[in-house]
Amino acid sequence: GLKPSRAGGAGPTQWRQTSAVVVVRAEAINPEIRKTEEKVVDSVVVSELSKPLTAYCRCWRSGTFPLCDGSHVKHNKATGDNVGPLLLKKPKE
Amino acid sequence: GLKPSRAGGAGPTQWRQTSAVVVVRAEAINPEIRKTEEKVVDSVVVSELSKPLTAYCRCWRSGTFPLCDGSHVKHNKATGDNVGPLLLKKPKE
Ligand code: FES
Ligand code: FES
Repeated sequence: GLKPSRAGGAGPTQWRQTSAVVVVRAEAINPEIRKTEEKVVDSVVVSELSKPLTAYCRCWRSGTFPLCDGSHVKHNKATGDNVGPLLLKKPKE
Repeated sequence: GLKPSRAGGAGPTQWRQTSAVVVVRAEAINPEIRKTEEKVVDSVVVSELSKPLTAYCRCWRSGTFPLCDGSHVKHNKATGDNVGPLLLKKPKE
């Protein structure tokens, strides 16, 4: 792309060619949750689930992680992403 | 920060002040999985889990999504991230 250059001092703005490089960077997806842990792994003993349906977060934005609190909606809207929770279903006995 | 500037031509390197701005960009965390779906939600009927331990992916890099295939290890190494799966445990009956 072209960028204004002021190297000429008091004269008119000069334009110099700069290179446009598209870098696909590997990025962390968890900005804040339990960053002191080397790897955030959670366990659910499925027999201990209390409700018929429990949503677990996969967007790493929930305020109640590992549970989903609906924060994926804001994340998807802000980024164009399409992530959502994992639903654990406990059929009625 | 300070950056070397060659604007002076043949003379010694001059240093000009540049601004350091930390931009926290909102980024999608799912690059490839089921992008035609508006929201990727998966359901597990916990009574149908066949193994004592099943790992579900939360890094959006698994080749066997929604299951974890260990791809979080490569993602964490490449990015410095600390994400890992959700483990569903089915106690022996
Ligand atoms: S809040 Fe993270 S998936 Fe819902
Ligand atoms: S492959 Fe995604 S959490 Fe393991």
